[in-house]
Amino acid sequence: MLGLGKTGWIEKDRPVCGPADAIVRPIAIAPCTSDVHTVWEGAIGDRHNLILGHEGVGEVVEVGQFVVDFKPGDKVIVPAITPDWNSVEAQGGYSMHSGGMLGGWKFSNIKDGVFAEFFHVNDADGNLALLPPGVEPATAAMLSDMVPTGLHGSELAGVQFGDTVCVIGIGPVGLMGVRGAVLRGASRLFAVGTRPNCVKIAREYGATDIISYKDGPLADQILDKTGGCGVDRVIIAGGDNDTFIDAVKMLKPGGAIGNINYLGEGEFVKIPRAEWGVGMGHKTIVGGLMPGGRRRMEKLASLITSGRIDPEKLITHRFEGFEYVEQALLLMKDKPADLIKPVVTIKW
Amino acid sequence: MLGLGKTGWIEKDRPVCGPADAIVRPIAIAPCTSDVHTVWEGAIGDRHNLILGHEGVGEVVEVGQFVVDFKPGDKVIVPAITPDWNSVEAQGGYSMHSGGMLGGWKFSNIKDGVFAEFFHVNDADGNLALLPPGVEPATAAMLSDMVPTGLHGSELAGVQFGDTVCVIGIGPVGLMGVRGAVLRGASRLFAVGTRPNCVKIAREYGATDIISYKDGPLADQILDKTGGCGVDRVIIAGGDNDTFIDAVKMLKPGGAIGNINYLGEGEFVKIPRAEWGVGMGHKTIVGGLMPGGRRRMEKLASLITSGRIDPEKLITHRFEGFEYVEQALLLMKDKPADLIKPVVTIKW
Amino acid sequence: MLGLGKTGWIEKDRPVCGPADAIVRPIAIAPCTSDVHTVWEGAIGDRHNLILGHEGVGEVVEVGQFVVDFKPGDKVIVPAITPDWNSVEAQGGYSMHSGGMLGGWKFSNIKDGVFAEFFHVNDADGNLALLPPGVEPATAAMLSDMVPTGLHGSELAGVQFGDTVCVIGIGPVGLMGVRGAVLRGASRLFAVGTRPNCVKIAREYGATDIISYKDGPLADQILDKTGGCGVDRVIIAGGDNDTFIDAVKMLKPGGAIGNINYLGEGEFVKIPRAEWGVGMGHKTIVGGLMPGGRRRMEKLASLITSGRIDPEKLITHRFEGFEYVEQALLLMKDKPADLIKPVVTIKW
Amino acid sequence: MLGLGKTGWIEKDRPVCGPADAIVRPIAIAPCTSDVHTVWEGAIGDRHNLILGHEGVGEVVEVGQFVVDFKPGDKVIVPAITPDWNSVEAQGGYSMHSGGMLGGWKFSNIKDGVFAEFFHVNDADGNLALLPPGVEPATAAMLSDMVPTGLHGSELAGVQFGDTVCVIGIGPVGLMGVRGAVLRGASRLFAVGTRPNCVKIAREYGATDIISYKDGPLADQILDKTGGCGVDRVIIAGGDNDTFIDAVKMLKPGGAIGNINYLGEGEFVKIPRAEWGVGMGHKTIVGGLMPGGRRRMEKLASLITSGRIDPEKLITHRFEGFEYVEQALLLMKDKPADLIKPVVTIKW
Repeated sequence: MLGLGKTGWIEKDRPVCGPADAIVRPIAIAPCTSDVHTVWEGAIGDRHNLILGHEGVGEVVEVGQFVVDFKPGDKVIVPAITPDWNSVEAQGGYSMHSGGMLGGWKFSNIKDGVFAEFFHVNDADGNLALLPPGVEPATAAMLSDMVPTGLHGSELAGVQFGDTVCVIGIGPVGLMGVRGAVLRGASRLFAVGTRPNCVKIAREYGATDIISYKDGPLADQILDKTGGCGVDRVIIAGGDNDTFIDAVKMLKPGGAIGNINYLGEGEFVKIPRAEWGVGMGHKTIVGGLMPGGRRRMEKLASLITSGRIDPEKLITHRFEGFEYVEQALLLMKDKPADLIKPVVTIKW
Repeated sequence: MLGLGKTGWIEKDRPVCGPADAIVRPIAIAPCTSDVHTVWEGAIGDRHNLILGHEGVGEVVEVGQFVVDFKPGDKVIVPAITPDWNSVEAQGGYSMHSGGMLGGWKFSNIKDGVFAEFFHVNDADGNLALLPPGVEPATAAMLSDMVPTGLHGSELAGVQFGDTVCVIGIGPVGLMGVRGAVLRGASRLFAVGTRPNCVKIAREYGATDIISYKDGPLADQILDKTGGCGVDRVIIAGGDNDTFIDAVKMLKPGGAIGNINYLGEGEFVKIPRAEWGVGMGHKTIVGGLMPGGRRRMEKLASLITSGRIDPEKLITHRFEGFEYVEQALLLMKDKPADLIKPVVTIKW
Repeated sequence: MLGLGKTGWIEKDRPVCGPADAIVRPIAIAPCTSDVHTVWEGAIGDRHNLILGHEGVGEVVEVGQFVVDFKPGDKVIVPAITPDWNSVEAQGGYSMHSGGMLGGWKFSNIKDGVFAEFFHVNDADGNLALLPPGVEPATAAMLSDMVPTGLHGSELAGVQFGDTVCVIGIGPVGLMGVRGAVLRGASRLFAVGTRPNCVKIAREYGATDIISYKDGPLADQILDKTGGCGVDRVIIAGGDNDTFIDAVKMLKPGGAIGNINYLGEGEFVKIPRAEWGVGMGHKTIVGGLMPGGRRRMEKLASLITSGRIDPEKLITHRFEGFEYVEQALLLMKDKPADLIKPVVTIKW
Repeated sequence: MLGLGKTGWIEKDRPVCGPADAIVRPIAIAPCTSDVHTVWEGAIGDRHNLILGHEGVGEVVEVGQFVVDFKPGDKVIVPAITPDWNSVEAQGGYSMHSGGMLGGWKFSNIKDGVFAEFFHVNDADGNLALLPPGVEPATAAMLSDMVPTGLHGSELAGVQFGDTVCVIGIGPVGLMGVRGAVLRGASRLFAVGTRPNCVKIAREYGATDIISYKDGPLADQILDKTGGCGVDRVIIAGGDNDTFIDAVKMLKPGGAIGNINYLGEGEFVKIPRAEWGVGMGHKTIVGGLMPGGRRRMEKLASLITSGRIDPEKLITHRFEGFEYVEQALLLMKDKPADLIKPVVTIKW
């Protein structure tokens, strides 16, 4: 990112490795919709000469003197969120907000990202995870952001055995939201989306009903299909501020909305007063940045190795060679009909 | 309530007692702000010849054949919320929404209330609690609604040891909100209000800082007093839909807002997008009707008998005689400066 | 059950239907190991002329005057646990202990069970669930006890995304414990058992590693296979009081043991002091009777209709005709090598 | 500690300060019963020339280059538990077990303690907290261990509004256990102990009933005083392995036992099978080492500054001068009748 709306290649010095840090060379990287937000929508403000990218798997090339568990040559999963683990926020269970709201999000935000020949990882022991044998780097790149963000939806919404769930938006995050809901015990699962390949994977991941925006207001459709009862949980992985209106309307009292969608514009999210039970309906609304760090990466990687999730299905476009990063990013911007997620693998 | 904006006395037949029910005669009753909403603001729509009142202590005069634990002559606490305990909602932990959102709220809503010579209580074994020896009926009348609603604020907001808490609104519910937060482990506690007698009791209940609406935007004041950090929890017991804007702004990531304020008008509650962390700040927003029923009444009564709470302080005006009910209700409507809560005690 | 160690047929009057109750005729019933405990091990003391059985699906033949949601002719799932929903225990979230510890367990314990031409169900609206279209009665009979008990293991143990879990015992309850752990997000899953058909289904339900008692102490095997780390959660669905010793030893600090095994004898369950962290290891130990009632049955039935669980696999022996109940019960007592669960279906 | 059973003064080099660490000089220190366990009971095995002590307030004399929030001259609270915050255990919410069970306990265990002219604190930014203005160092020394351990009892046992609680043992930790239970909403509170000054403070901290071991089995007494119902929560802060037998017996189904007592000997903790509901009573048993670190210290210090807790009452013996440390330690060993907690303050 050269500036708002401009991308290109820049030369920078190799980053310096602190005593607890690591320098990593990417071997599989993926652009994210939030990279698109950053460059073309100015979501995090104007930035100049910022290296993009926060999804990737790499090879350690250097570690600081206090790093114990990693060494050069190790293949590692790099989470999009790399917290300062000794911050008071992390101590309180909200590591993604270490040092301030969203403060755990460093790559391509407050420091250079992973679309570089070498990138810097703070607190290597706390933030990297070994790539398990048998897992493809391209697949593991989905663990940086798509998998943890998607699965966090169910954690936020508190899915329980037998819950009826609606997942709004079935891009790559929403698809993992579908899979996560199934893995938390959802029974009937409404997935909202229209793109054919996303619909196909939503079904493979466990969606039982597909809902289209085009067939009328979402809440009406859901209430209609549930005999007026609504759903126990809503996971929002797409739409905009007004999506919450539908979400509240379709939600049962005692239910919860878990938002994992980046809300890029508008002043207010609107909660419909009456359907929110005049403030007394026990309809919980919460959204949260994905938890990152080593433990989370290890836990989620184990879901791949034990066959519980298969994020490889998200990858629709593959490139080989670092030079294809920009092309992959532009794909993410242009969103051709068959795109879910592009990955660039790199051999050094 | 004769109709919107009109109150007066009406004659009705004594209610019929079902096999699991009880008929109760009031011995201490209190009007509530929501009675005022009902009559003069049409909060629950137009109603005709509805007997008002949902806060009271009474004496059982009749029980159904399947009632085991109560008998005529028993002095009982009557909760404002009397759920159908075998409903699927109650089985799922949300008894206040039994049979539908807010469905546990029956008195002066979907059936006649307690401002009557005799009133009906559904499921006596499940919804009544014995008045403990030594507790004044007038004080115990605060257990119907003020205490459980106020204390629910801290449950919704999830107060933990050492949390900094802001309670917005210090009418009778907010004051119990203050006390509840202290009893859940709050340390610094900001109470927002201005009326001198409420401020005095807020301090007695444990508020450490008093904030006035008149001194500027609430969030600015709180952020200023906390070095920009904000608070861990917000309990909303006053204000309106826009109060949530301030609440979100003053809240730390990972914190929660517990609303116990009836939102009487306006289409939307507004959540400020940016301060809500672009949907990713882990700032939980939830509001909920008080849990009612027998167990809750017994638990809260035990807080009085063990000296943890002293709701008697809420009572600023006392009347003796059933005929004073209307006067007490009008007090609640007119809110003189020294009013917190009026109670009418009755000798039969 | 005629008395300890004796079974046979007895004639009793058709039970009387209270105003909130139902009388049901079984159409699919299954004997349970606890029936065996009751008759041949005296687990609940000496009983005379007690009708056994607490797993079944039936057809409503009569309902009381206050029953709203069921009528004669309805096919219904009957949970083994039928709580008194207005009890203080149920109001506090522990309906299975309504009226006292384990008090929600009524069938074949404090009243006659379901192995009868007609049986009585207390609080029909609160305790029955409609058999969903397309679900076989024999399969649905697994919802009475095997499914809710098995799945409760993960709820007790608090399984989270990516947890390593050990399920000790893979009889029918343990197998559902395996499935439940997968449906709560377990990754690596050790199942302890040896019987070939159970092992086969354990794998189909998602076990990744099979452990045999015969290959040495369980904790040693698990620690060995996890590089000394142990597991995050243990679900105990077999063994005896001493099984907890192994469970504590294999458990990580911060982990939990969820027991769903009926402990039939011995004075004490033993917790190894040192491995329990000298009392400070945050290794939670809890066991609990399954939650019953209507909502639970509906939730779990929805897991069948949405394809998340397939309890039909548990059924290894099928009988048709009420007269085969005793034979099925004796099978459960004798446990032939190929037995998991027998079911008797009945046409009237 | 020179060796098992032997104490004395030793000369050691001043510890070396790592880049994230601090070197601190004590200004108020307190011996703990666990120091006694360590020296005279060999609780953590034989140790030679280990400096004891893990409770103290001090003044920073040196910080590493990466320390941001502390500088020489700062008065700081030092927690007994100083975790490695980037460990996977801490990331999972169990910082006290960082690096292995109880691994966060470093002082006077795996490294020298605070009874030294200079002591070393790992991760200063993550583990120290500023002494708030107006709080006496001697009082603040109670925040190292007595307060966080005592209050953790209620967190483990999950005390809710109106719960009946029994705190077994009212030494300094148990007394803070009493106070913590009140601050989580306990109503009736049984405190088990006999020493007059402890009993006096237990009442001041909110105990409503005092129980003596000498008046019969604890469970019998509690069941007698609660009409056979038992209590909702038990906090174990004294006794031995067999104390759990009484605790389980006095506990209601759905209740929990939170152990904060160091179990120094014996092979097994015993859980009475029948009263534990044959494994199905939902009686949760958990014990845990106190959470340490900066955030916890700040939170608990705020409970002092806001007047919620007053741990100064625990201090019965005061010494001034570093040379009195041994005398204070021997007091803790000999436990004179009027002792609760000795503190040594030091002026340099």
